[in-house]
Amino acid sequence: MYAYDIIKKKRDGECLNKEELQFLIKGYLTEEVPDYQVSAFLMASFLRGLSEEETILLTDVMLHTGQILDLTEMDDPRIDKHSTGGVGDKVSIILAPLIAAAGVTVPMISGRGLGHTGGTLDKLASIPGFRTEMSIADFRNILWETGVAMMGQTDDIAPADKKLYALRDVTATVESIPLITSSIMSKKLAEGLNGLVLDVKVGSGAFMKTMEDAEALAAALTNTGNHFGVRTVAVITDMDEPLGRTVGNSLEIRECINALKGRADKDLIEVTLTLGAWMLYLADWVEKAVDNPRTVVPRITAIDEGALSEKRAELEELIDSGKALESFMEFVERQGGNSEIVANPALLPGAAHIKQVQAVSGGYIQRVDAGKVGTASMLLGAGRQRLEDRIDHGAGIILNRKSGDTVQEGDTVAVLHYNDETNLAEASQLMEEAFEVGTEPPGSKKMIKKVIL
Amino acid sequence: MYAYDIIKKKRDGECLNKEELQFLIKGYLTEEVPDYQVSAFLMASFLRGLSEEETILLTDVMLHTGQILDLTEMDDPRIDKHSTGGVGDKVSIILAPLIAAAGVTVPMISGRGLGHTGGTLDKLASIPGFRTEMSIADFRNILWETGVAMMGQTDDIAPADKKLYALRDVTATVESIPLITSSIMSKKLAEGLNGLVLDVKVGSGAFMKTMEDAEALAAALTNTGNHFGVRTVAVITDMDEPLGRTVGNSLEIRECINALKGRADKDLIEVTLTLGAWMLYLADWVEKAVDNPRTVVPRITAIDEGALSEKRAELEELIDSGKALESFMEFVERQGGNSEIVANPALLPGAAHIKQVQAVSGGYIQRVDAGKVGTASMLLGAGRQRLEDRIDHGAGIILNRKSGDTVQEGDTVAVLHYNDETNLAEASQLMEEAFEVGTEPPGSKKMIKKVIL
Repeated sequence: MYAYDIIKKKRDGECLNKEELQFLIKGYLTEEVPDYQVSAFLMASFLRGLSEEETILLTDVMLHTGQILDLTEMDDPRIDKHSTGGVGDKVSIILAPLIAAAGVTVPMISGRGLGHTGGTLDKLASIPGFRTEMSIADFRNILWETGVAMMGQTDDIAPADKKLYALRDVTATVESIPLITSSIMSKKLAEGLNGLVLDVKVGSGAFMKTMEDAEALAAALTNTGNHFGVRTVAVITDMDEPLGRTVGNSLEIRECINALKGRADKDLIEVTLTLGAWMLYLADWVEKAVDNPRTVVPRITAIDEGALSEKRAELEELIDSGKALESFMEFVERQGGNSEIVANPALLPGAAHIKQVQAVSGGYIQRVDAGKVGTASMLLGAGRQRLEDRIDHGAGIILNRKSGDTVQEGDTVAVLHYNDETNLAEASQLMEEAFEVGTEPPGSKKMIKKVIL
Repeated sequence: MYAYDIIKKKRDGECLNKEELQFLIKGYLTEEVPDYQVSAFLMASFLRGLSEEETILLTDVMLHTGQILDLTEMDDPRIDKHSTGGVGDKVSIILAPLIAAAGVTVPMISGRGLGHTGGTLDKLASIPGFRTEMSIADFRNILWETGVAMMGQTDDIAPADKKLYALRDVTATVESIPLITSSIMSKKLAEGLNGLVLDVKVGSGAFMKTMEDAEALAAALTNTGNHFGVRTVAVITDMDEPLGRTVGNSLEIRECINALKGRADKDLIEVTLTLGAWMLYLADWVEKAVDNPRTVVPRITAIDEGALSEKRAELEELIDSGKALESFMEFVERQGGNSEIVANPALLPGAAHIKQVQAVSGGYIQRVDAGKVGTASMLLGAGRQRLEDRIDHGAGIILNRKSGDTVQEGDTVAVLHYNDETNLAEASQLMEEAFEVGTEPPGSKKMIKKVIL
């Protein structure tokens, strides 16, 4: 078998089989296939596409380049949630301890932020003492004791993805639905899950800019997850505006604590409860279907709306009763972090300077462009332009106004927090542009666009 | 400027400008742009295509990575001929001394063979003593003294092409019309020519398998050549059968000597005289148009068929009078070769063994598949599978029958010449399959398919 022939086949739009994908991906890991051949393959795959079957095969090959966790010793169903990435998307940090409080195990292997999107791990790393890197054994122990554990990707899990992603990142082959699918799923399927809820973001702050693309990605993800026996649901949610009112690592941790105390903005709590209800729904589905844990759980074909509402109410009750916040504190402590941040948020890293952004005209805010806010936050130091960049955990943006709010010229609509003023002017300019103001109130915004089973 | 953005632009089907192409190609040469980014660019170009303008710009950029010969000290028009590569294509070796005998200067920088196609330089290298590698200064001297010189590509001429071609060869991005065009033309435009005749091969033994592709390549080549002020004509010729009756290096030199003595097969002399007449036609066109050598020569828009026939007759006369053969002997000697091969072909390298190939059925030969014959010849050692392979100059194939000939079962239709029997069985098998026999005579074959100005 030759890499040349495999590239040529994909170039000509033919479908590759498992042996061919294996030859290429394993060969890349062992350096028997050079990067310049892999990048030609990636571009051919980007432009010619991969079939459903090829996407599943590629996921399978990538998954098996690493370790797959076997967590069957946990009695509870193991359900994870994954977002395709957005601006101000702090949902995992609220949701993971909340779902654990409901008695469902949440083993979460998460990523770091890149470009205008933030990463869950970067946010958690702003908590003093919090460890995001640990051994699989430690991860398993924490999970066993608290029902929730979060860590960064290790070299043991889907190592092919790490190497391929770095190559895609420099060869303009990231934004491909089958390549995104195999990248996400090869990591998620290594977590030993029974169920997975995907938050597929759509809008200016997301990778998928249109509903058409978001639906295609959602379908590819659920199709792949379900193929491997992990019951998978994708919820397409709005990412045209940042989620909640903060963007930046320690600022978002503060907002998460507020949310767990029952004080969340409407858009943030709506997305959190919808995804959380689906996690509990999947947990129930798995438990009901499986008397014998070796049985294959059937796919979900219809939604019991009543049961879903009950799950949502259950989550609201966990927040109201303070149990969710308790679960968060336990989780933070167990991962080495200082849970006093809950009582005293000033323990989180801060910024030496702030700058207010004023509205340039008055009226109704139509939209706060998530892409621009994300880029502005990155420029202030809260995000990475390149994978190797360091992050300023104290930097970020607070939004005082969002779509639907009224504003007068000169009102402060956002506050920039920063330690390094290198890109301050550019970030301020972007933030001014991010606020789109009109004379009429905008139509009401739907956070939940569609559910794909 | 970032390589990433250039790749992305081409990936999305946008046109690149000169600065972008320059950044990429020059950066590749200096290793500022890594090969894995260039291969992603090549695959994007392969699948998205390059516009006419981009093809010209890419050619220009590649041309200017190296030296461009200034041969204005030669008074005569300087006309070259280039073939896109075929099986048994020995035309350049007959044509170059023939055209020089007609008083036109022929500066020819030629290539080595790869895969099933042969290379002019490999054939010439089978002549004892013949030098194909020399300095530009030596090339210029030989050209001045004999009117014809042939050499291999040096590192000084379009070095970007050499490096890019090696990358295309391993990333399945060779067979792209704009990439082929910029590769050929960046070398040919470095020769200091006034005119160029291109032999675009079509058929099973050529890179272009269909007339549609051949016409597109011919148009891209003439368009690019003419853009740079080199008057360029492309003749599309048949390469469904090998040209002439020999394939292999020293065997083809023997056939060339016979052709210069007036004993050539019909197909070979037809292609040779057609291309040669066009070379003289272009030379006249250039001379007539240019009183002042700085004037731009106008494009040819109509063909004077009478003048073309006269040129053809002039070439026949040069062969009949023995002047063409004399020119060949002078050329061989001037390049260090032993011209006694003309009187005594046994001085050429031979093969220790021969094997006859018999017809498996009787009837009319419909076709002798050029692709199969080319591959068989390569397997016997006459060609290269990889760029770094060594060639056996004595190995090759003589065809006793070609399309239109009758044959009886068991007749010897071809003779294999070989020194190494490693791939003999495979080569014999291919040769048996190459002969397609039917009960009816095939239609007459047209060697010259089309002329593109």
